[in-house]
Amino acid sequence: MTLEDEKPLHVIVTAGPTREYIDPVRYLSNESSGTMGFAIARAAAERGYRVTLIAGPVHQETPPGVDRVDVVSALDMLAALKEHFPGADAIFMAAAVGDFRPAERFEGKWKRKEEGGDGTTLALVENPDLLATIAAEKGARKVIAFALETADGEARAAKKLITKNADYIVLNGAAALNAASSSVTLIDRKGVVWKREDRPKSETAGRLVDLLT
Amino acid sequence: MTLEDEKPLHVIVTAGPTREYIDPVRYLSNESSGTMGFAIARAAAERGYRVTLIAGPVHQETPPGVDRVDVVSALDMLAALKEHFPGADAIFMAAAVGDFRPAERFEGKWKRKEEGGDGTTLALVENPDLLATIAAEKGARKVIAFALETADGEARAAKKLITKNADYIVLNGAAALNAASSSVTLIDRKGVVWKREDRPKSETAGRLVDLLT
Repeated sequence: MTLEDEKPLHVIVTAGPTREYIDPVRYLSNESSGTMGFAIARAAAERGYRVTLIAGPVHQETPPGVDRVDVVSALDMLAALKEHFPGADAIFMAAAVGDFRPAERFEGKWKRKEEGGDGTTLALVENPDLLATIAAEKGARKVIAFALETADGEARAAKKLITKNADYIVLNGAAALNAASSSVTLIDRKGVVWKREDRPKSETAGRLVDLLT
Repeated sequence: MTLEDEKPLHVIVTAGPTREYIDPVRYLSNESSGTMGFAIARAAAERGYRVTLIAGPVHQETPPGVDRVDVVSALDMLAALKEHFPGADAIFMAAAVGDFRPAERFEGKWKRKEEGGDGTTLALVENPDLLATIAAEKGARKVIAFALETADGEARAAKKLITKNADYIVLNGAAALNAASSSVTLIDRKGVVWKREDRPKSETAGRLVDLLT
């Protein structure tokens, strides 16, 4: 897998949050801004890779030379992955995919109750595990996973790497979300590869693209 | 209430969605972009009103001459309203305030369950009704409410106007969210005042600011 091959390597990058709609206007989502995924897509395109960026709803400009596929929900993202990953050579799964979606999507606006109680419950179902689904059939392709952990991060990320069949996992703390810089730990099957403390995401993105060579 | 008074009238505008956090990263929100509220704030400032804009999380630039107060949740917005409304002369409540918030905010990241079932439920509690709370003590101040309805809109909006003690209510369809133009019906206590079909929000904002004179 080098850039001297006839065709440039095709890299998939997922970025941003997903949105899981409850009704036509309300949704469940998360704080991901897409900054890291977009920075990886930009860095990879600058180095001559062919890049397909599968992005949830974010306010980010498409980097030059990048093919962008916009998606909304985790199921949308999975469909896009199933379409684009088979022809690709590597994938960075930087999106913060919603674990759950509402069990039901209401056609009309979900109404404040007219009477009784002051609470309610929202029934949720688990979304498919995109990382496990994609990595299970990765073959020789490199899969770089991302983990956001609020406690006991390295142990959890290392376990996730193994159980989900990824090659690398990039561990972030919650402070990384929606920020220009972050503290990141790169883990492979042998353990911690490197740590970067409070560095610009654009710079970390370049270090992550180095994993393709 | 005219502009010839010694001090300019002080107008409060609420805009954008609210976010109700489930844990450090996940939240419930809605599609509101803040476009209409920001357009009203801009139009009011251009006409010489003193404007305080209470904004949920949006990607919008603060219009020139407008004091902006950023908030996240419905409870944050209520606190800002209680601080700023007593000294104001009128209010446009254009924000799409979340009706519900999670009953509990988890300290760590809410985890995918390790075993059993593939679903879960999220317990929610009702947020206070910001419009009713503010309008109940409005006195001589003008309260312009906003309604987003997906069915039976005029009847519902007219009922909301009366029960919540507003002076006007601006009825939007769901297509108005996150769009540059919208179809809007203005209703007062006597009925429909005017309708505007698929007009730019900036133009409709000017018509709404006319209500202050």
